[in-house]
Amino acid sequence: MRLNALTGPDELRKASVEDLEELAKEIRKVMLRTVSENGGHLSSNLGTVELTLSLYHVFDFSKDKLVFDVGHQCYTHKLVTGRYDSFSTLRLDGGISGFPRTAESVYDLFNTGHSSTALSLCAGLCRAGKLLGDTGKVIAVVGDGAMTGGMCYEALNDIGNDDSLRLIIVLNDNGMSISNNVGALSKYLTYMRLSKGWQRLKHRFSDVLLKVPFGGKWLHERFQNIKDHIRNVFINDKFFSSLGIRYLGPVDGHDIHNLSMVLHKAASLDGPILIHAVTQKGRGYLPAEQDPERFHGTGPFCIEDGKPRDPAGGPSFGKAACECLLDLAGKDPRLVLLTAAMTHGTGMESFAKRFPDRSFDTGIAEEHCVTMAAGMAKGGLRPVVAIYDTFLQRTYDQIMEDICFQNLPVIFLIDRAGLASGDGGSHHGIYGISYLRTIPNMRIFCPRCVEELKEILVWALSASFPVAIRYPKEDPCAGVPYPTEPFRPGKWEMLADGRQACIGAVGSMVPVALETAKELKKRGVDAAVYSCTSVTPLDTAVLRTLSEKDIPFFTMEENELAGGFGSGVAEWCADNGVRVPARIFALPKAFLPHGSREMALTRAGMNPAQAAQTIMERVQREGKS
Amino acid sequence: MRLNALTGPDELRKASVEDLEELAKEIRKVMLRTVSENGGHLSSNLGTVELTLSLYHVFDFSKDKLVFDVGHQCYTHKLVTGRYDSFSTLRLDGGISGFPRTAESVYDLFNTGHSSTALSLCAGLCRAGKLLGDTGKVIAVVGDGAMTGGMCYEALNDIGNDDSLRLIIVLNDNGMSISNNVGALSKYLTYMRLSKGWQRLKHRFSDVLLKVPFGGKWLHERFQNIKDHIRNVFINDKFFSSLGIRYLGPVDGHDIHNLSMVLHKAASLDGPILIHAVTQKGRGYLPAEQDPERFHGTGPFCIEDGKPRDPAGGPSFGKAACECLLDLAGKDPRLVLLTAAMTHGTGMESFAKRFPDRSFDTGIAEEHCVTMAAGMAKGGLRPVVAIYDTFLQRTYDQIMEDICFQNLPVIFLIDRAGLASGDGGSHHGIYGISYLRTIPNMRIFCPRCVEELKEILVWALSASFPVAIRYPKEDPCAGVPYPTEPFRPGKWEMLADGRQACIGAVGSMVPVALETAKELKKRGVDAAVYSCTSVTPLDTAVLRTLSEKDIPFFTMEENELAGGFGSGVAEWCADNGVRVPARIFALPKAFLPHGSREMALTRAGMNPAQAAQTIMERVQREGKS
Repeated sequence: MRLNALTGPDELRKASVEDLEELAKEIRKVMLRTVSENGGHLSSNLGTVELTLSLYHVFDFSKDKLVFDVGHQCYTHKLVTGRYDSFSTLRLDGGISGFPRTAESVYDLFNTGHSSTALSLCAGLCRAGKLLGDTGKVIAVVGDGAMTGGMCYEALNDIGNDDSLRLIIVLNDNGMSISNNVGALSKYLTYMRLSKGWQRLKHRFSDVLLKVPFGGKWLHERFQNIKDHIRNVFINDKFFSSLGIRYLGPVDGHDIHNLSMVLHKAASLDGPILIHAVTQKGRGYLPAEQDPERFHGTGPFCIEDGKPRDPAGGPSFGKAACECLLDLAGKDPRLVLLTAAMTHGTGMESFAKRFPDRSFDTGIAEEHCVTMAAGMAKGGLRPVVAIYDTFLQRTYDQIMEDICFQNLPVIFLIDRAGLASGDGGSHHGIYGISYLRTIPNMRIFCPRCVEELKEILVWALSASFPVAIRYPKEDPCAGVPYPTEPFRPGKWEMLADGRQACIGAVGSMVPVALETAKELKKRGVDAAVYSCTSVTPLDTAVLRTLSEKDIPFFTMEENELAGGFGSGVAEWCADNGVRVPARIFALPKAFLPHGSREMALTRAGMNPAQAAQTIMERVQREGKS
Repeated sequence: MRLNALTGPDELRKASVEDLEELAKEIRKVMLRTVSENGGHLSSNLGTVELTLSLYHVFDFSKDKLVFDVGHQCYTHKLVTGRYDSFSTLRLDGGISGFPRTAESVYDLFNTGHSSTALSLCAGLCRAGKLLGDTGKVIAVVGDGAMTGGMCYEALNDIGNDDSLRLIIVLNDNGMSISNNVGALSKYLTYMRLSKGWQRLKHRFSDVLLKVPFGGKWLHERFQNIKDHIRNVFINDKFFSSLGIRYLGPVDGHDIHNLSMVLHKAASLDGPILIHAVTQKGRGYLPAEQDPERFHGTGPFCIEDGKPRDPAGGPSFGKAACECLLDLAGKDPRLVLLTAAMTHGTGMESFAKRFPDRSFDTGIAEEHCVTMAAGMAKGGLRPVVAIYDTFLQRTYDQIMEDICFQNLPVIFLIDRAGLASGDGGSHHGIYGISYLRTIPNMRIFCPRCVEELKEILVWALSASFPVAIRYPKEDPCAGVPYPTEPFRPGKWEMLADGRQACIGAVGSMVPVALETAKELKKRGVDAAVYSCTSVTPLDTAVLRTLSEKDIPFFTMEENELAGGFGSGVAEWCADNGVRVPARIFALPKAFLPHGSREMALTRAGMNPAQAAQTIMERVQREGKS
């Protein structure tokens, strides 16, 4: 059985286990090739090949329904549902997404990307099926990392109370979320894995699995005492059963034969059931097995040694922030760091190593993370929350009520602000200015370079109120002059003077603004450029001066239009009767696809040539040229 | 021991149990008197009198730390921490708040109001104490209803994994949250209450408690087989122990003697501990015991019979929405209703009674509620989520990712939009337009009367995308003409014509705008009034016409300035080069105190006389008069 001969997922139901094991090998090769070239989520996908094939072996997903939590582990699913031919375009401009996308396939039920939602989505599907007479089964695949998220518990609490729900939850337990797993449930799952039931588990030691490249050693270590075929084993589970969920497992998530048997069994039972499948992240590719976190989401790399292929981009904002925090933490014992399963992603590993007692990784539990920071601040600490912009969304209420209503001095280091390129859709950090701007007491700053980031961080540590510092992964401002004046909230820095127009650019857009001014100069228009690091508060003195001098003001931000920086400027002007005829250069209020930042900016009319043209036309119309 | 003689909470540590029981009686009387006059949260406060006194009996909250989850059960706490004299001002303009407020007392550690945050806050306090050498104990009081919220689980999962945390969690189990409790954990707690351990519990049958008015019967029924004094009983708990939390209980939450013993015991133990205290909502006041939901949050009432004292306000938006839904659901089997512990509050009780199979109350689990709605919509249903504006905040990410990224047809009926009067601070629905406006694909409508609400609801049911309908508790538009034209998204209705100025008012502000226009007429200014029900999309045709005719446009909304309706108008104008010199009448970007709506509008310069003055000055300055 070969991927290119596969006409549809139906064939997997009829295939033999041996065929599927053969297919698994090919799938791993295809994944490895594409991800090594395009970047992507490798560890989780290598870990779920057999699990996904087993699901397709047992269920008919033209009728049954399959939802992957987060969805970054959907590559096998994509390869067997008609996307083998397009798989090489993964994450590229115009190519297929690294996440389930409804527009790509009827087998992708939801556009997912954020964690811990699958159980709620599936509860909804189950209840819809029940009311509308759809008898298809509903299967949720949820990682043990995602189970740290409170939504899973809310859903389990609801699902476990409704015996009529025929939901099968496959808990994909690889012992880690993105980084090492944390929390009591993780400990509990480990206990279950190591419990007598699991040890007693009679197990078929598949020859084929032994031959999987690199996987054999792990399998040997893990199953050396296990000889026989599986029987369904119900370990005496406490956690899930106290919530009314029947527990089935643990079962080896790489053993298609046994896993299929357990899935069959689950399909025959009534009420909600959880299958505890144990898998290995990065399975079959040694570098990923050995460092699954590094290969969770990776850029292009050399297959031979796993080393990154791309030349380094600009300096990493996260790493710069970490260096600065290390320095500050040495002087100030109140400083503590919080992350939500993103110590690595936010560049904070050295802080966690150097100050383990002052580092708190809550796992994928952003809300607890943010509200705990409020408690810490009240208790006299100075908490710094390092988090991705897109995941901070989940804490809107906690920032509002627990941090800002108390006006507590919590610092947010918001990484991956702006376009998310390869991940796209669910991962763009282009709403952050907008939603943070609606929250009273929050100050928002978007540094344009790592030097400015450090300066803001030092200042924020002495502030008595919440501060949000937003930045992209890499400093895009190589070659832009360093700030010459000390950072002051509510003060914008003039980078270029001009009298016919003024461009106010936020953070990552400063280089684009400077380039635009150059383009304008070529066309005979003399434009000033301000670096608008301070989003809240605005530099209203600059706005008043522009108004007095009747100079048109053009804002530029890597954020959506609705409620963003330009919107804030327009709002202030309208509310204060100041006339600054602005044009807002911002991304559309939309869910943008994945693809390169340059392409997205161009689509939005925001590359330097486009912006220069727009500004020139406006200036001419206003009679300023 | 009398409240007026109490010099400080210290005295409660030295007091005898009999003194405290005497005090409990007085506290109930004071609460009943004040809440019957001012309105407030009655059931939960009557249920936690002894529990709170026991905490003050055992702990020293000048050193130890006490956090109430939500905080609506803090009246006893307020009465014993220096707020007896001001208690009659509860919830009034300038009076004390019904929730903990840091500005009122050092004993109020946080400004709370939203559910399920106390464990995270306390985890933060514990960790701060540990790092900074503060040896005070930390106690969280959490209701069983709040335990439905995912944040509690996220916190338990973290806390249970850290033996060094000396956190005492008092689970205040009254068998209900706001309405009847739901979910598997609730079932589990009931099981624990009824288990052999609890039945065996040797119990001191306090004569004093028997004499508590109205409470005796309940006590008799509940404890008829219980004779002796308590011993600490560890029931074989599964749920909390699997998360690493030591479980202690159940214990009668109205028995100060026994509860104090258990609290002492807990204080002597290491690691995180949960005390399961069983209490009765509304205890000591028969009408509240019999209908605790109706007295959860109540307006003024007659103590004698519990009947509401106020004359009815305008028609209830929620009830009107419910009538309309009943009608629609009869015709369309796809229509289902979801609430998060707010079936009563949102006026949806008759729907839940008439269509029990199509009503889903998730308990205090807003995120699961919203994401399940996404699953239901994908499964072919037409889900309607009825929720308070302030609690919808918690689902910002779920609305964004699970509903709007999929563009699924989910209808949000957003009640209590606008100022929250008595509840104040944490409960104002004045950010809703702002945060919803940042989310792509979401349409936002603010009907000005129940007739329009119904019309929008009918239209929304035929739409293929998400729709948010925001309204206050009561229709404030008595006397305002009904809509004459059929509802159309993106179309504003002209209610009064005028050529010197134009007021665009959103929903609840329409009567203020009409009154303002009358005031202006008296002053010789001729102002048009538009009812701007459609917030997203805007009526850009009206904006263009105003621009062409050079008529100044004044927006009015019961929402904060930042990112609101007026901000949206300014943003659109700036982005499209349309000059409409607007003034935005909106509430400040701030956490406003509790108190009357009129007072809040006046403070914001938004009563008709103030607005007329502002508009007149602007019109004169622009030379239009």
